[in-house]
Amino acid sequence: MQSRINVAILGASGYTGAELLRLLAGHPHVNIAALTGDTQAGKPIEAVYPHLFGSQLPALVRHQEVDFTGIDLVFACLPHGETQAVIAELPQHLKIIDLSADFRLFDPALYETWYGHAHQAMHLQGEAVYGLTEHARAQVQKARLIANPGCYPTSALLPLLPLLKTRHILPEGIIIDSKSGITGAGRSAKQANLFAEIDGGLSAYGVASHRHAPEIEQSLGWAAGQDVRVSFTPHLIPMNRGILSTIYCMLSPAHSAADARHVLEQTYKHERFVDILPEGIMPSTHQVRGTNRCVINLVADRTRGRLIIISAIDNLVKGAAGQAVQNMNVMYHWPEDTALMHTAMFP
Amino acid sequence: MQSRINVAILGASGYTGAELLRLLAGHPHVNIAALTGDTQAGKPIEAVYPHLFGSQLPALVRHQEVDFTGIDLVFACLPHGETQAVIAELPQHLKIIDLSADFRLFDPALYETWYGHAHQAMHLQGEAVYGLTEHARAQVQKARLIANPGCYPTSALLPLLPLLKTRHILPEGIIIDSKSGITGAGRSAKQANLFAEIDGGLSAYGVASHRHAPEIEQSLGWAAGQDVRVSFTPHLIPMNRGILSTIYCMLSPAHSAADARHVLEQTYKHERFVDILPEGIMPSTHQVRGTNRCVINLVADRTRGRLIIISAIDNLVKGAAGQAVQNMNVMYHWPEDTALMHTAMFP
Amino acid sequence: MQSRINVAILGASGYTGAELLRLLAGHPHVNIAALTGDTQAGKPIEAVYPHLFGSQLPALVRHQEVDFTGIDLVFACLPHGETQAVIAELPQHLKIIDLSADFRLFDPALYETWYGHAHQAMHLQGEAVYGLTEHARAQVQKARLIANPGCYPTSALLPLLPLLKTRHILPEGIIIDSKSGITGAGRSAKQANLFAEIDGGLSAYGVASHRHAPEIEQSLGWAAGQDVRVSFTPHLIPMNRGILSTIYCMLSPAHSAADARHVLEQTYKHERFVDILPEGIMPSTHQVRGTNRCVINLVADRTRGRLIIISAIDNLVKGAAGQAVQNMNVMYHWPEDTALMHTAMFP
Amino acid sequence: MQSRINVAILGASGYTGAELLRLLAGHPHVNIAALTGDTQAGKPIEAVYPHLFGSQLPALVRHQEVDFTGIDLVFACLPHGETQAVIAELPQHLKIIDLSADFRLFDPALYETWYGHAHQAMHLQGEAVYGLTEHARAQVQKARLIANPGCYPTSALLPLLPLLKTRHILPEGIIIDSKSGITGAGRSAKQANLFAEIDGGLSAYGVASHRHAPEIEQSLGWAAGQDVRVSFTPHLIPMNRGILSTIYCMLSPAHSAADARHVLEQTYKHERFVDILPEGIMPSTHQVRGTNRCVINLVADRTRGRLIIISAIDNLVKGAAGQAVQNMNVMYHWPEDTALMHTAMFP
Repeated sequence: MQSRINVAILGASGYTGAELLRLLAGHPHVNIAALTGDTQAGKPIEAVYPHLFGSQLPALVRHQEVDFTGIDLVFACLPHGETQAVIAELPQHLKIIDLSADFRLFDPALYETWYGHAHQAMHLQGEAVYGLTEHARAQVQKARLIANPGCYPTSALLPLLPLLKTRHILPEGIIIDSKSGITGAGRSAKQANLFAEIDGGLSAYGVASHRHAPEIEQSLGWAAGQDVRVSFTPHLIPMNRGILSTIYCMLSPAHSAADARHVLEQTYKHERFVDILPEGIMPSTHQVRGTNRCVINLVADRTRGRLIIISAIDNLVKGAAGQAVQNMNVMYHWPEDTALMHTAMFP
Repeated sequence: MQSRINVAILGASGYTGAELLRLLAGHPHVNIAALTGDTQAGKPIEAVYPHLFGSQLPALVRHQEVDFTGIDLVFACLPHGETQAVIAELPQHLKIIDLSADFRLFDPALYETWYGHAHQAMHLQGEAVYGLTEHARAQVQKARLIANPGCYPTSALLPLLPLLKTRHILPEGIIIDSKSGITGAGRSAKQANLFAEIDGGLSAYGVASHRHAPEIEQSLGWAAGQDVRVSFTPHLIPMNRGILSTIYCMLSPAHSAADARHVLEQTYKHERFVDILPEGIMPSTHQVRGTNRCVINLVADRTRGRLIIISAIDNLVKGAAGQAVQNMNVMYHWPEDTALMHTAMFP
Repeated sequence: MQSRINVAILGASGYTGAELLRLLAGHPHVNIAALTGDTQAGKPIEAVYPHLFGSQLPALVRHQEVDFTGIDLVFACLPHGETQAVIAELPQHLKIIDLSADFRLFDPALYETWYGHAHQAMHLQGEAVYGLTEHARAQVQKARLIANPGCYPTSALLPLLPLLKTRHILPEGIIIDSKSGITGAGRSAKQANLFAEIDGGLSAYGVASHRHAPEIEQSLGWAAGQDVRVSFTPHLIPMNRGILSTIYCMLSPAHSAADARHVLEQTYKHERFVDILPEGIMPSTHQVRGTNRCVINLVADRTRGRLIIISAIDNLVKGAAGQAVQNMNVMYHWPEDTALMHTAMFP
Repeated sequence: MQSRINVAILGASGYTGAELLRLLAGHPHVNIAALTGDTQAGKPIEAVYPHLFGSQLPALVRHQEVDFTGIDLVFACLPHGETQAVIAELPQHLKIIDLSADFRLFDPALYETWYGHAHQAMHLQGEAVYGLTEHARAQVQKARLIANPGCYPTSALLPLLPLLKTRHILPEGIIIDSKSGITGAGRSAKQANLFAEIDGGLSAYGVASHRHAPEIEQSLGWAAGQDVRVSFTPHLIPMNRGILSTIYCMLSPAHSAADARHVLEQTYKHERFVDILPEGIMPSTHQVRGTNRCVINLVADRTRGRLIIISAIDNLVKGAAGQAVQNMNVMYHWPEDTALMHTAMFP
């Protein structure tokens, strides 16, 4: 019997929390020691998630009730804006993987612009690591506080970062047209997210104003060595899981689509969770449902010099809970795919 | 009691045929005189469409069996490639509205490139009118043969044509990212279109190779007075009806997004079926389901000079059967919204 | 130009209200004079229903703000329990069609048992007519206050009433297993009705305790001339519209399934909205979507003497708004299918 | 490294085959040695299942091409009727788990009645074991040929068998109203199963004539010690996975619903995959999606003496591939939940 670390999940009653529980149920080195859910405190987990009936998990409590002494690591699945204050008060011995957006923007002015208030835990921002695992493995390994990337940024950055770093594509004029399943909108009771409002229809939202745009631009800027501005349009699709991002960008004059493909194939050839699909197999969110994978393909457009890249992830896994577990695995030097070896559930 | 014209629908057993039957059931000037469906010939319509039980429609026959003497107008809902030969043999007294792609490309070389064979009825192509009603009303009125526009082109051209004609946007670099419901793929039994293959997932198809690209470019070229090349990426969404097109383009240096809005509002202010939505209401396919409307909005992107336009139609109505009826109404000088006055069915 | 009556819709911001607006938009004798929606008062209708953009309807107001002097008829789409008090205070000149459950149970003790409080407008209950149109046409014609039937009862009563009245089936042991689309649960923001909670799954609710059971039993009792108790189990299906009821009952010893079919065919042969399908065409909610129809078929079970009846309606139309319009048409001696002549929208 | 048995999957290109691959990917004692798919022979598995890209599985071959010498066990996922001939020619050393219906009916006359032809391998029928694991564990352990139960029968028999064996319910008058996701209809290209035909609607099929009725009756007859006839009505639900069965039956005069609950709780208290839910938590297919569980609850009806039982399974797991793996685990004396320890995927 292997020893296990004790883990607490803050905000366990949302979809991201439930997904962490699904993944961690199969993790040989983790013990779920505490679950918090302020509005549901006192209830057993099956009262909020009947599919977890019989799972032997601790009941939900308020986060103030948790004794963090014996806890090793915290997954924070709390709302944006609230998280920073909660994390600021946690004991220093804890490793923290934050699935909110609170520590993702490293420039305090940028944070204030997009979130409408000054950041309340800038001292912690300094030690945070942006945890896009494949591109931050060394820092993640040493980090105490991980800012787990957003779902849209993960889908866009995995294909774009290697191409920008190697200057195969131009940093100007990148357009990211993303389509997401509805779980990305969370579990709170909003009329707009009722089945009857979503099923059978489709719309864009946050056009030219979604908060994931600066998050994407920050990483692209790091890769390009210059400021980058993207067009980013998210859409809500009548399905539960999955993000498909269709990305339009311009090849550098010296490079072809085949060159770009080669860069991505080389970058990810040893990566367990990123696949560059062969020509002719287009990414579909079906291919990644329930898994931590990102599948990518790219096509030379009919417009000379333009490249079309398509990537697909499961927003709740590689876009949230799965990447969080992946980061935890890296932090503890466990095999990176521990508890993440799922075959996609199709149909 | 008003007199009625006699109408035949060729290929009535597909989704477009059924939609024509739904719309024409409420048309005071039309009598459905014949329905053809070669593989289903001999069956009553409710055998292929149980929801039409009790509708008193003629049974399906082979098109060779139709006596066209008493027919005034034909809606052709036949497969691409087959249609031209069928239409070429129809009597000259018939008005024809063709919902296939066979007469949409006016350059025979372009047709041959995209459809893989020489056009078999070029003499008819000469008299065809591309029936995007709002932009071809005068020609439609006099036409004998209408090439009814494709669903994707309709969604893209309605917002783009006025902006290109007035040079508010540049003809270069237009990107059309379209999302379509599954009825666009037709009713033939294909594994890829099974419920279990489509539900819960999302993918792109025909990337940089879809036949609606040259159709879009043809009209844009007419409007711009020069060749235009677009990037066009269609996606298949797990829903039945609707197309949402997200269009990225560059404003001309002299013009703003507000100018562009003004152009569209002026162009369509007297149009019954095209609405420029006020700021803050984003187009959704829900808003147009079952109707002949196109709803459009536009937003200035964060990237300077870029305009994001979003349009929504019901692919089976304004994208097919509805526009066909609209064109018929124009041809016969009936009020253009006859049989097309539906309120959207939501939910 | 025909004269029109003035109609007010109380509670217009829910799905039933929206459906009334869709149907009445095509009604030649009705003018929508007032719309109420207490929590949304002051907003234009397109603020709560974007698909009604451009519809020229009055803005939402509080029902206290309506001047009922010029109003002829009220459709009440208010919540159960609240409706009776509101209706009790309306002027006596108004005709009222109540789509809530408040006036459906005619025994005050039964009402109190199922709704947990004494009825607050028993004097009105006395003049109410249970408006299952096909079985109450004469009373509806003279009524001032219609209790519009519930959606599940409508689907069950249309096939069962003629069979019970003619004693072709036994009143004991009737089982009604109903499956409903999610719009039946209304438009209020509840976590349980979020897309992510409904899509891809299925469950029963209100087992042996749903309030439509006594409503069904009341009418069956009237037909049978004795008390009737049924088993009624509703299920929530991941779709928007439609109810399919699968009904198990025992034939009277003297009668066969063919006899039962004959009774239903005779009962409904002149009815515009009820169809007994031929053998081999099974009812599907697809066949009635968006229409006021009820389609029915029946099959002799392998268990001797048992009859299986299947009926399908659109819960928002024949199960609510459509039957309300049908009742209004009867009250005013207009053709009963005025504004109800839709072909089903399929797909 | 533990030793592994070599397994072949016949008919791997259907949904049941894909589900076996998903489950077996996590099995520590199994090596996938051969995959057959006659119409797809020669293709890599990712050509028919793109979500299996990168899975290192053998390519599809015709079953005649398989060298069964080194194979230990065969999962047969072939069509009904074809399977018996294929299995009859397999070498005798193979263990066989047949997921078709070919060996489920033990009375040859009954088989012929329902399947329309004489059984072609009656000598094998004699050694077949009906593999409803929880009720046939001892026989499964010694069996060479398992007839893996059908999906509907599994959902009905798990709750009914213990109640009939202990005479807590009467064998007469049992009604099983089942609702199934569309994957139960298989992966062949049929118009009726297209997304556009299924989404948004609901219907019954095989009313009083579905082949799972005699399969259910056979087991119920064994349990009751007398012939049993049930009413069984399956319905097709617009979702991918899951069966919910709503079962109506009569309690024996001496017994209450509480007694029946006690029987089921006692029967299944040590079972890993069957849960009797506490009062107030109704079974939903969401609770079992992707898992080998069956969840059950029961309610006393308002009709005296009637019991309503509701059970839910994932048709592809406990209703097919999962129970097959469970049976294999029993045959090899491995822990019964090996490779079956999934938490439900919700949403």
